[in-house]
Amino acid sequence: MKQNIYDNEIFFKGYTSLRNSGKTYNDFIEQPAIKSVLPSLDGKNILDLGCGAGDFAKYCIENGASKVVGIDISKNMIEYANKENNHEKINYICTSIEDLDLQNHKFDLIVSSLAVHYIADYSATIEKVTSLLNKNGEFIFSTEHPIVTARKKMSNWVDDNEGNRLHWALDNYQEEGEQHWYIDGVIKYHRTISTLINTLINKGLVLEKIIEPQSIPTGLEKMPKLINEKRRPSFIVIKAKKSSLER
Amino acid sequence: MKQNIYDNEIFFKGYTSLRNSGKTYNDFIEQPAIKSVLPSLDGKNILDLGCGAGDFAKYCIENGASKVVGIDISKNMIEYANKENNHEKINYICTSIEDLDLQNHKFDLIVSSLAVHYIADYSATIEKVTSLLNKNGEFIFSTEHPIVTARKKMSNWVDDNEGNRLHWALDNYQEEGEQHWYIDGVIKYHRTISTLINTLINKGLVLEKIIEPQSIPTGLEKMPKLINEKRRPSFIVIKAKKSSLER
Repeated sequence: MKQNIYDNEIFFKGYTSLRNSGKTYNDFIEQPAIKSVLPSLDGKNILDLGCGAGDFAKYCIENGASKVVGIDISKNMIEYANKENNHEKINYICTSIEDLDLQNHKFDLIVSSLAVHYIADYSATIEKVTSLLNKNGEFIFSTEHPIVTARKKMSNWVDDNEGNRLHWALDNYQEEGEQHWYIDGVIKYHRTISTLINTLINKGLVLEKIIEPQSIPTGLEKMPKLINEKRRPSFIVIKAKKSSLER
Repeated sequence: MKQNIYDNEIFFKGYTSLRNSGKTYNDFIEQPAIKSVLPSLDGKNILDLGCGAGDFAKYCIENGASKVVGIDISKNMIEYANKENNHEKINYICTSIEDLDLQNHKFDLIVSSLAVHYIADYSATIEKVTSLLNKNGEFIFSTEHPIVTARKKMSNWVDDNEGNRLHWALDNYQEEGEQHWYIDGVIKYHRTISTLINTLINKGLVLEKIIEPQSIPTGLEKMPKLINEKRRPSFIVIKAKKSSLER
């Protein structure tokens, strides 16, 4: 099933209001981590899988990229992106990652921010990414940390009677597959760290770096609860390269 | 500090009795995982870091290795190995990994089973391993999973009043460093998955595979509690290669 929560009206409104606050986990944890491992974007041809409102696509152009293709399954998002982050060097396409078909296109960099956990077939996604990369091209993506998606519960913090957080509850780690989220009908997929990494390697990518990010200092000021990222990471960011050399 | 619990007499007796039972986490989880990713051992020159009683060294020779060097910090262990698993093609040396100095030796394969979490300086260890590997040589090691070493408590299962295991407690994930074990004075070191992996890459190795192993079927029969490995992995096994090619 192709996942598209952002065309759920209630969700989309919640999303845009949260986004415009500039105070989100993405702003303070996930985006800084992705940006910390970006190569020089100068003259690069970039694909953004799950581009959302197009902020990152715009960021790439502002930092020297020659062309960005941003795809998203949500019409709402693509409309929003075309309004807010329109640019002649950016092409927004409304399609799922599963249906993406870019004949003869190759990219120097493929980025995907918090989209991979909505995709049922991770292996096919990585195969597609690999086929779309130029030699020495890089793939950087973030996803929810397996520590977070493992246990099939809404919240996994365990509190004492006074509401102090005692620890994070982990369970079902090895049981990969569907995990229901807080909007009915929305499915996230849990995969172990070994699956996330080994699939990349099996499809011909070379792992370059893993980040289990914490909040940047501003985040700790503006959202004090982000200190809890020290106790368990919410996200994992993975960077891999299509090596031009046989191994 | 170089760690040597196996020369603690009480610990050593406990260890040998447990080992001789043939019913341990090592027998059913960790060793099968290591063996599942071994390359052909035929004609290979092998180094075993933390060789213990020498079972694995002997296994390598039985499977065609031309020479094995096994090192262990414990005199007890090296004596035991020389008695139980003596072989003309195996050379047991009593030294810590930190003090290991093998001038002009290079190996095709370096294996280390559940020793790395006792070593304070992981980065220096990986640097040494890399320098001791031939081109295309491989490093395979197991260590306690970061999920297990993160929280600084004896046991991290949380039970209900009837003794049912509710979940695994995770905490302090990002706080790397010393974690005290159940024998006074013995220190284990917690490191995140990102540190375990990125250090290998930074020192010039190419990641080949990660395993978060579960029990083999025999283990589930003989030690039913090993079913809990589905809920969270105890170990992580990592395989990396010294690439002969520039990346």
